[in-house]
Amino acid sequence: MEIFMEEAFIEARKAISAGEVPVGCVFIYNKEIIARGSNDVNATKNATRHAEFVCIDQTLEFCKEKKLNWKNVFPEVSVVVTVEPCIMCASALYELGVKEIIFGCANDRFGGKTVVDVESFYGKKITVTAGIRANEAMELLKEFYKGENPSAPVPKTKR
Amino acid sequence: MEIFMEEAFIEARKAISAGEVPVGCVFIYNKEIIARGSNDVNATKNATRHAEFVCIDQTLEFCKEKKLNWKNVFPEVSVVVTVEPCIMCASALYELGVKEIIFGCANDRFGGKTVVDVESFYGKKITVTAGIRANEAMELLKEFYKGENPSAPVPKTKR
Repeated sequence: MEIFMEEAFIEARKAISAGEVPVGCVFIYNKEIIARGSNDVNATKNATRHAEFVCIDQTLEFCKEKKLNWKNVFPEVSVVVTVEPCIMCASALYELGVKEIIFGCANDRFGGKTVVDVESFYGKKITVTAGIRANEAMELLKEFYKGENPSAPVPKTKR
Repeated sequence: MEIFMEEAFIEARKAISAGEVPVGCVFIYNKEIIARGSNDVNATKNATRHAEFVCIDQTLEFCKEKKLNWKNVFPEVSVVVTVEPCIMCASALYELGVKEIIFGCANDRFGGKTVVDVESFYGKKITVTAGIRANEAMELLKEFYKGENPSAPVPKTKR
């Protein structure tokens, strides 16, 4: 999965260049990337356009193009994302019933596992792997918020 | 708000005719309905197209057309919906920072207040009014699930 997490980081770095919160995501199906995206909140002026929702919509497009039933595709999808999905996104991923979620750093404020265990409300079990390149993912967030939000805690980074 | 809840019910009844889970929603801004919709999961083949997301997208379109900033519009929006927003939708409404949420019946499985108090994670306070025409909203759901899901509990209705 390292190669896919690197692709998610590529998306996260694009986001930071575009002035968006640096979270990147790819969806894997049959060992291939079928969706990739990052936070798109500012560009679309839509606070719900998190990286995962961008990828969900691409996956639905993929299903349409390939004439596949989404109900068969999502259970085979691995979600690889640099930051733990928030409650909203985690709920969406459980609604859709993805196969697994692999994330980088935890989302201590809104995480759909860390803050609330969204899984406990759904009758579905999704394999969750946390902490892949967590420090790097967190550094990107710190870099972003350092420039953005004067009231955010500014940790000393090694850069 | 009764007149707006009736409009939400009109949407919910459309949904049941279309074979969708009967949840209807309208968004009110400056005392007018700017968005209306119902569950659109089957038609769009997208499990995240709940009534609230349909209305969120219409509101963003409204903002674009009227050249209004969504950040100024959502804090003035009243969400009127026949069933309590689920965790995903409630999180989206807190992300967007709507003014208030008025709902019919509680959502005992996935409710963003009943099951998890989504508000406790967001630094925003939204006025929530529950229980408006709750029985009717619940009857619609029962009517739908009676035909759909043989494993769902089938309560005796008065119809």
